[in-house]
Amino acid sequence: VATSLDTDMSDAVALTNQRRDFHRFAEPGWCEVRTASLVARKLADLGFDLAVGRDVLAEPRMGLPSMDELRRALEFALSNGADKEFAALLADGYTGVVGTIRGAQPGPTVALRFDIDANYGFDRGVDSGLADYRSINDGVHHSCGHDAHTAIGLAVAAEVVKRRDDVAGEIRFVFQPAEEGLRGGRSMVAAGVVKDVSYLLGCHIGVQALKTGEIICGYNKILASEKFDVRFAGRNAHAGISPHRGRNALQAAAVAVQNLLAISRHGDGETRVNVGRIEGGEARNSVPASAQLQGEIRADDSTILAYMHQRVEAVVRGAAEVAGVEVDFEHVGGAGGASSDAGLMDIVGTVAASTRGVTSIRREADFKASDDMSCFMTAVQEVGGQAVYFGLGSELADVHHAPGFDIDDAALRVGRDIFLGCLGEIGALT
Amino acid sequence: VATSLDTDMSDAVALTNQRRDFHRFAEPGWCEVRTASLVARKLADLGFDLAVGRDVLAEPRMGLPSMDELRRALEFALSNGADKEFAALLADGYTGVVGTIRGAQPGPTVALRFDIDANYGFDRGVDSGLADYRSINDGVHHSCGHDAHTAIGLAVAAEVVKRRDDVAGEIRFVFQPAEEGLRGGRSMVAAGVVKDVSYLLGCHIGVQALKTGEIICGYNKILASEKFDVRFAGRNAHAGISPHRGRNALQAAAVAVQNLLAISRHGDGETRVNVGRIEGGEARNSVPASAQLQGEIRADDSTILAYMHQRVEAVVRGAAEVAGVEVDFEHVGGAGGASSDAGLMDIVGTVAASTRGVTSIRREADFKASDDMSCFMTAVQEVGGQAVYFGLGSELADVHHAPGFDIDDAALRVGRDIFLGCLGEIGALT
Amino acid sequence: VATSLDTDMSDAVALTNQRRDFHRFAEPGWCEVRTASLVARKLADLGFDLAVGRDVLAEPRMGLPSMDELRRALEFALSNGADKEFAALLADGYTGVVGTIRGAQPGPTVALRFDIDANYGFDRGVDSGLADYRSINDGVHHSCGHDAHTAIGLAVAAEVVKRRDDVAGEIRFVFQPAEEGLRGGRSMVAAGVVKDVSYLLGCHIGVQALKTGEIICGYNKILASEKFDVRFAGRNAHAGISPHRGRNALQAAAVAVQNLLAISRHGDGETRVNVGRIEGGEARNSVPASAQLQGEIRADDSTILAYMHQRVEAVVRGAAEVAGVEVDFEHVGGAGGASSDAGLMDIVGTVAASTRGVTSIRREADFKASDDMSCFMTAVQEVGGQAVYFGLGSELADVHHAPGFDIDDAALRVGRDIFLGCLGEIGALT
Amino acid sequence: VATSLDTDMSDAVALTNQRRDFHRFAEPGWCEVRTASLVARKLADLGFDLAVGRDVLAEPRMGLPSMDELRRALEFALSNGADKEFAALLADGYTGVVGTIRGAQPGPTVALRFDIDANYGFDRGVDSGLADYRSINDGVHHSCGHDAHTAIGLAVAAEVVKRRDDVAGEIRFVFQPAEEGLRGGRSMVAAGVVKDVSYLLGCHIGVQALKTGEIICGYNKILASEKFDVRFAGRNAHAGISPHRGRNALQAAAVAVQNLLAISRHGDGETRVNVGRIEGGEARNSVPASAQLQGEIRADDSTILAYMHQRVEAVVRGAAEVAGVEVDFEHVGGAGGASSDAGLMDIVGTVAASTRGVTSIRREADFKASDDMSCFMTAVQEVGGQAVYFGLGSELADVHHAPGFDIDDAALRVGRDIFLGCLGEIGALT
Repeated sequence: VATSLDTDMSDAVALTNQRRDFHRFAEPGWCEVRTASLVARKLADLGFDLAVGRDVLAEPRMGLPSMDELRRALEFALSNGADKEFAALLADGYTGVVGTIRGAQPGPTVALRFDIDANYGFDRGVDSGLADYRSINDGVHHSCGHDAHTAIGLAVAAEVVKRRDDVAGEIRFVFQPAEEGLRGGRSMVAAGVVKDVSYLLGCHIGVQALKTGEIICGYNKILASEKFDVRFAGRNAHAGISPHRGRNALQAAAVAVQNLLAISRHGDGETRVNVGRIEGGEARNSVPASAQLQGEIRADDSTILAYMHQRVEAVVRGAAEVAGVEVDFEHVGGAGGASSDAGLMDIVGTVAASTRGVTSIRREADFKASDDMSCFMTAVQEVGGQAVYFGLGSELADVHHAPGFDIDDAALRVGRDIFLGCLGEIGALT
Repeated sequence: VATSLDTDMSDAVALTNQRRDFHRFAEPGWCEVRTASLVARKLADLGFDLAVGRDVLAEPRMGLPSMDELRRALEFALSNGADKEFAALLADGYTGVVGTIRGAQPGPTVALRFDIDANYGFDRGVDSGLADYRSINDGVHHSCGHDAHTAIGLAVAAEVVKRRDDVAGEIRFVFQPAEEGLRGGRSMVAAGVVKDVSYLLGCHIGVQALKTGEIICGYNKILASEKFDVRFAGRNAHAGISPHRGRNALQAAAVAVQNLLAISRHGDGETRVNVGRIEGGEARNSVPASAQLQGEIRADDSTILAYMHQRVEAVVRGAAEVAGVEVDFEHVGGAGGASSDAGLMDIVGTVAASTRGVTSIRREADFKASDDMSCFMTAVQEVGGQAVYFGLGSELADVHHAPGFDIDDAALRVGRDIFLGCLGEIGALT
Repeated sequence: VATSLDTDMSDAVALTNQRRDFHRFAEPGWCEVRTASLVARKLADLGFDLAVGRDVLAEPRMGLPSMDELRRALEFALSNGADKEFAALLADGYTGVVGTIRGAQPGPTVALRFDIDANYGFDRGVDSGLADYRSINDGVHHSCGHDAHTAIGLAVAAEVVKRRDDVAGEIRFVFQPAEEGLRGGRSMVAAGVVKDVSYLLGCHIGVQALKTGEIICGYNKILASEKFDVRFAGRNAHAGISPHRGRNALQAAAVAVQNLLAISRHGDGETRVNVGRIEGGEARNSVPASAQLQGEIRADDSTILAYMHQRVEAVVRGAAEVAGVEVDFEHVGGAGGASSDAGLMDIVGTVAASTRGVTSIRREADFKASDDMSCFMTAVQEVGGQAVYFGLGSELADVHHAPGFDIDDAALRVGRDIFLGCLGEIGALT
Repeated sequence: VATSLDTDMSDAVALTNQRRDFHRFAEPGWCEVRTASLVARKLADLGFDLAVGRDVLAEPRMGLPSMDELRRALEFALSNGADKEFAALLADGYTGVVGTIRGAQPGPTVALRFDIDANYGFDRGVDSGLADYRSINDGVHHSCGHDAHTAIGLAVAAEVVKRRDDVAGEIRFVFQPAEEGLRGGRSMVAAGVVKDVSYLLGCHIGVQALKTGEIICGYNKILASEKFDVRFAGRNAHAGISPHRGRNALQAAAVAVQNLLAISRHGDGETRVNVGRIEGGEARNSVPASAQLQGEIRADDSTILAYMHQRVEAVVRGAAEVAGVEVDFEHVGGAGGASSDAGLMDIVGTVAASTRGVTSIRREADFKASDDMSCFMTAVQEVGGQAVYFGLGSELADVHHAPGFDIDDAALRVGRDIFLGCLGEIGALT
């Protein structure tokens, strides 16, 4: 007969396979048609009430890819096993899914949030053993572990359904698109997906917790951040005959890159600035007439972020003037800062202490990164609810956002069990 | 009955249509499969001896596009009316064509050289009237007038054939690929296409001669030039959590761009430097690990070009060190300088003086640009032959290499007639 | 009869006058001949055992000014009221003074440390009322409040002497030169001035405490820092005739400045980088052959400082290569990080609670700046002693190091009384 | 008895000594009190009519040094053998001298122009043999050969006086201050010193003519030029505590330097740009609040110079905006372009052909540098006179404006004799 340990092992294998499936078919923000459709299909099959697409994402959706890229994303999904029915509802950048389960008994309204998108970037595949689930989507890579988050979310949902009768109140499983670039959170909050929520929980894998079995009960100081695009528009000219007639957009971009990186540190808290992408120019022998930058700033709080924003605008305007070109600055994503609530951190701590596989527990850590989980947290906290973003330890094959990044699948079950334990502690599972 | 004027007008229309056809199906360097195949077909139909592809291009062919791009070029050609038979010989970056005609009488060995490639760049189409031949090949544009050169070459060939019996000696019509980037000339010379040539003629439209009807009898000081690619390779890292673990290739590129542009002028002659294209980075929120530049330098002579080269190498090496990244520098094209011979300039002047449509004649002008016509000129001049690169005036809709560039088709017939007149003067047409 | 309040007011006036006298005759690091000589004279008159000059400063003294500047410093001091006898011992950059008093009773060995140097910078004088003590030493300005520290030190010394019989153990008054640039601390520690010290106390005015009456019981995270000079050496050339023959040291400096500022933030803690001074070039019309930078880096700890140092070296070497010039990098000052001990912070807190004029007490604050008080602290802490650097609140007329900087003299008495109270609490004054 | 060769040799020694005396006591523009006073004294002693100081220099005198520097210049002059009487008239930046001699016979009005100022820059002294006349004025160096020009001018004057009776018409010896920076010429022209002049002659040593004995009959294309100062004004702040409160003037300067050097070449002619001096910042540990640049642009003609000017202004304004600082741009000198007249070039050629020591004669050369000789030339040419600036060949110890620059004294006599010969040819000496 199957023992519970067998079940567990079989579960662990399923969890790992699920995670690696998402990893293999990595999809970037607003393009997660396959991922979201399979999430929706599974939740529907489990009996959840579903809201998807336009029902869970309010406009504007910042940083939306081109219609062309969205169309190719749909094709990619359909060619790679997406659920056709849901795909139709999720297409064109509406890749959010919320599954709700309500108990017969009264109880709290709880939301669990999981982000589902992958990053742009090359997936090296960490070694031959892992090569079988390397991303087949060229230039897209789950290098931030959202594949793990998504798989955990589905596993929690499955366990909750197994205990259908214990559910008290309402539990919402929020699967959010486009966390990278801080784009999806704001739209989902605006669509009301955490309305009336008393308890919000989420987790991130491998941030400040690099050993499998380690738990950080709650992150503090999720950095406020803003994402922006900059476009410089100059004038072409023959680089030999009449270079003086050109207006060099690439020169402006070079000035901008150097001086964005050189924005002064702030005496009152941490800041970050990055220009992650550039493209510019038309031909080797023509003064370049166009250049585009993709950048971001981060800060400990909104005052410091405002300082960074003011400096960014001055730098790009000044860079344009230096080169005699036009500049266009577009805000394409963002989220404020947030910290976890002590009450829920206590609960995570209590649960972790009795969760199999947990080997060390830290009370808290600064997140040192941005995450639009903060949008949900702030929405919940502002009306008196509590929120926690806990850290799920995992050995990593390389740092986040690097080509060699991968997580340890052994962490998945630990994450699932922490969520389940917390649902019990807060009275959502009796 | 048809008068000679009627013939002329019908010729002019055909010439214009031919030029606009090439314009509409613009193809970049090493990708001119349609253009070259149609050139070859027409020369074959006219009875020329043909040498194409591998027979007229020696290795290495510098700055060859990726196999993927070459494959797409072949598809583009075949979908847009290429001659299938010749296309097979011209595919994979072998887009050169040489047509030879030999007279019964003894006479000089003459080469006429025409470059056939288009530029990378957007074709704006200068106004609604011209919109019918705007480039359908996105991002490729005949913004340097090689469509005109090619059409003129075919028109000269057709006229020569009409006077088949007058041909003395040997006339080679050299249709060269990949002039942009200074790539094709060296390969054709190495393949021997101007071996034993006593007289070499070529023309450029609209350079230093901006009125239709103007002729510059010979260009001097074609600038020596070198084309190069630079690739910086750094290391990704999460821009929020661990930016210090990154090695920023885009910072290196920004330093390189600024300081390449800042290479000092040379006291002994003109120089140029351009970085025409950049691409870098992987994702907005990751320290960028890669960046590529496409650049070029030019100079009045090879000594000054060597100075520029030495500075370019120092700048890119230094930029890499500043950012702590690796750098790879690749030479992808180049040609020396050259000037026209006085004897042939005299002949062009004499011919121009009696050519219909010529309204002003200048003895000479500095070219102020680069052109691998210089490779042919030097090869001919080094063994005692004469060469001329004459200027064919044309009103332009915008400067060379700009999105609005277009030429005045009225100049085409003038160009054709200058070539024909010169063939007469040098005894190749009696 | 004089009441204690009268005494106090007369003391306060004397303290203010003393502080303003030092302010008026501001002297930069290693040049504080007048200041130090008057300190020494006063301590001698009060009966302290004195050690000065070479006896309290070990070689090497980093960042020493030129002999010429040192000579002028001596002249300035002698022309402005320096004590001649002591000036002779303090000249040539030996401007340290230690005064020791020993009690008849046994007791702890205590050191109080006061830094005495001014900054380079223009003293605007904050308003007409304060104009009477504006710095007469052009380009030198007490814009960091060391004039206050020095005056407080002398006032504490005077009070201790009034209570001569209460002294238990040994109290050393350490007057340190050249704190700016982090130069003097290391030399004094190496000379043994805090050998065998059990308790070390110091204070800084106006850092993180901007209200007079506010006390921060102890600073933490004094930033580790390194000061460096960079010299680029190129080659002159006529900027019109032969600019290519030059090697542009100023271009290297510009690259260095931009990319020093652009050194990436560190994920594990705060960093700072500044280039505070530049001088370069010889003549408007000559390619500049020389350029000098004065810079500094700071970090939360020595690991992060090592990262910054490694980046600085790469940037300046790379900048030199970009411009084809030579570079010389010189370490001219530095100090590690340090934090205050809890035990002494408790004592400062207790004393502050009963000190007249104290209106608010904060347990601790990050210092967010560097100070070679850390050299003394580390030396004492490494052998089991305790150290505290407490914050003395003061309204400021402008931020530190700004032309309009000035302190509120009402803070002086508070500072004096905290030191005296602490001496009592730790048993050095019974 | 003394032969003419003896006289000649004694003259040559005197000429050399005179040149080296000026070299040793090098004085920068507007500060040439010693040089000008000795010139005036000598001309007065020779019997010339003199006009000096305010009588030969109209306001505004561009790029005047500070009153402090002018005062020190007077002191330097008086301590080093200046003529006291004339020094008083020349002080405060009025260092121009014009000596006139009129013949009894009618004849042309001729002006000979000699510039007298030295450059800022270090004089290395080229070898031990020359060390005896190395500049004793620290940081000032005759690295452009004006010491030679001045000595030649006096020698010509002395010879003319020897032939007093042969003088026809009027000959003016114009000794111009502040050629470096293109400052003095405009003021002297505005004061009328070349009014009614029919023939203007001047020479430059060692430009494009690097062999002693070589003569260039006339320079063409003296480059138009503009000299400018840029001052950035930001805000200081403590680089550790509150760097974000600073506004970094040095960052602006770094952006400006890089992008001034990166101003695009012009397709229609030569350009130059240089930033020759920078100074910035107040203290190592303070965000720098000030930075000054000294720069210049040059161009083949005034249209191209206008392009350069427009780019310079855009660059410095943009750089200021990048760093959030204020900027002030000041025009401190300048002159248009000019070329020599053919008629006078013929005369120089004829004279050179029969001048002892001349070994090679070139008809003309592009000057490739700027010189406010052009102000005089244009003033004369505009009213129908002729002007020539001829080249006096000399071996050089290093390039112009370099620390090792020095000329070959053997060239001095050649220069003198060319002037004398020309005076004869044009009928000013019969």
